[in-house]
Amino acid sequence: MKIAIIGLGLIGSSIAKAIKGHATIVGIDKDRSTIGYALDDGVILKGGDGLSLVSGCEMVVIALPVGSIVKVSQRLLPYMDKGTVLTDTGSTKAEIVRSLSTMWPWFIGSHPMTGKETSGYALSDINIFKDTVSIITPTPTSKESCIKKVKMLWELCGASTISMKPEEHDEIMSKASHLPHLLSFVFMHLVKEEKFPLSLIGKGFRDFTRIAGSDPVMWRDIFMANRHNILPLIDNYIRELSKVKSYIKEERTDKLEETLREYSKTRRSLDEHKG
Amino acid sequence: MKIAIIGLGLIGSSIAKAIKGHATIVGIDKDRSTIGYALDDGVILKGGDGLSLVSGCEMVVIALPVGSIVKVSQRLLPYMDKGTVLTDTGSTKAEIVRSLSTMWPWFIGSHPMTGKETSGYALSDINIFKDTVSIITPTPTSKESCIKKVKMLWELCGASTISMKPEEHDEIMSKASHLPHLLSFVFMHLVKEEKFPLSLIGKGFRDFTRIAGSDPVMWRDIFMANRHNILPLIDNYIRELSKVKSYIKEERTDKLEETLREYSKTRRSLDEHKG
Repeated sequence: MKIAIIGLGLIGSSIAKAIKGHATIVGIDKDRSTIGYALDDGVILKGGDGLSLVSGCEMVVIALPVGSIVKVSQRLLPYMDKGTVLTDTGSTKAEIVRSLSTMWPWFIGSHPMTGKETSGYALSDINIFKDTVSIITPTPTSKESCIKKVKMLWELCGASTISMKPEEHDEIMSKASHLPHLLSFVFMHLVKEEKFPLSLIGKGFRDFTRIAGSDPVMWRDIFMANRHNILPLIDNYIRELSKVKSYIKEERTDKLEETLREYSKTRRSLDEHKG
Repeated sequence: MKIAIIGLGLIGSSIAKAIKGHATIVGIDKDRSTIGYALDDGVILKGGDGLSLVSGCEMVVIALPVGSIVKVSQRLLPYMDKGTVLTDTGSTKAEIVRSLSTMWPWFIGSHPMTGKETSGYALSDINIFKDTVSIITPTPTSKESCIKKVKMLWELCGASTISMKPEEHDEIMSKASHLPHLLSFVFMHLVKEEKFPLSLIGKGFRDFTRIAGSDPVMWRDIFMANRHNILPLIDNYIRELSKVKSYIKEERTDKLEETLREYSKTRRSLDEHKG
């Protein structure tokens, strides 16, 4: 099988590394030096910056930031043979699936639930999909054979797959990922001018802020694409934070304790259900 | 040397375990079964729930939630011999040091920068202080000999020590620890009613929310004791979050990207300076 991967960043090149024993891989990236490294490393067999390279491939994987996926696909489709399975790796799904499933009946949206705060080819990792879940988001008109091939792709990478509606995906992700990222990012504003000794930063701080080091373009696109879910959550969060602030300010220690107890119980219950 | 530890929770019993080869330890806790376990395990040599047990000790360590430290000290001092070094392990320092250094000239405030989201004797750990920093907060009237003894206590536990003013400690901690905890706690409000599959919760979510499982009473006390620093930070955070919200809402993608880039740069610079 011949597979084209568009975007040899962290996710795209990790896919290439994970499946290269099972497929002939064509790599497309606008950065020519990345293509050079991937060819030298034997991660891709053929590569360049031209989208026409997808001709003759049986599957095309778009591993670009959410905001580029539809735009690049529009330029890509003329080069693709009818029946070629198209998938993406974007962290939001509703807008992308709405556009692409109209444009290309063989499109199935994907979202591999993995990543790092770091990005780029140099940090790609064959093991990044191990023991993770890739979500696929077919629509009622999706072809069974296409779904099967996209599932196979993720299983070859070492991930298991689950299916859900694109809208359901975006709603879940707004809480399970997007808002935590946004809140961690925004916290950096308070730390910006700080001169405090780094020895005073504990594990709590490091873990809470780890995701604030994530890629700005990737997250700009995610926040924009999923704003319909994210904006009401921000309002909800500010309301709750203001409530707790008033408990502190008005020295309502009983209410404060009761509320913290609820939060702590919720967090602990997540760990219990994990096991 | 005979040392009394008041409160055999996570920190108190970890101190006992760490120094038991170097001192005779008296354990005081209102929970009699905890005293029983600590005696059985040989972690303390003598123990009970009466504060009079501190008589004859050369050092007393109060390892209680911030809100109990001054209250318990007031009942404790009548039993202590003049010259006995008193320290505490509270996560806030200004209020505590202000009260106790007036009441007891041999008091030196401490804050071991360690902990877990879990609490209690059963989870105490001899290694919890290894490679950590304990902050001590002497005042201009603190006695050099008392400072020395408190430093020695933390060094015996395996921690290094640094000194700073109580007010400086509280200001730093409001950003390095207290606000991250508060923001992580509050996020649990959005997750409370969620039914989403736990397989969809990634490392980002888990790390961001880990500290939300912390002890409610401990954190109620910290938020109240340091409200003077925390309240303005909450306002500042809400202002910044509202600004980012407006960028998303008004589709100002350039401003959004620029702001995320700043946050990400700040976070990454922390890691660079660490090394």
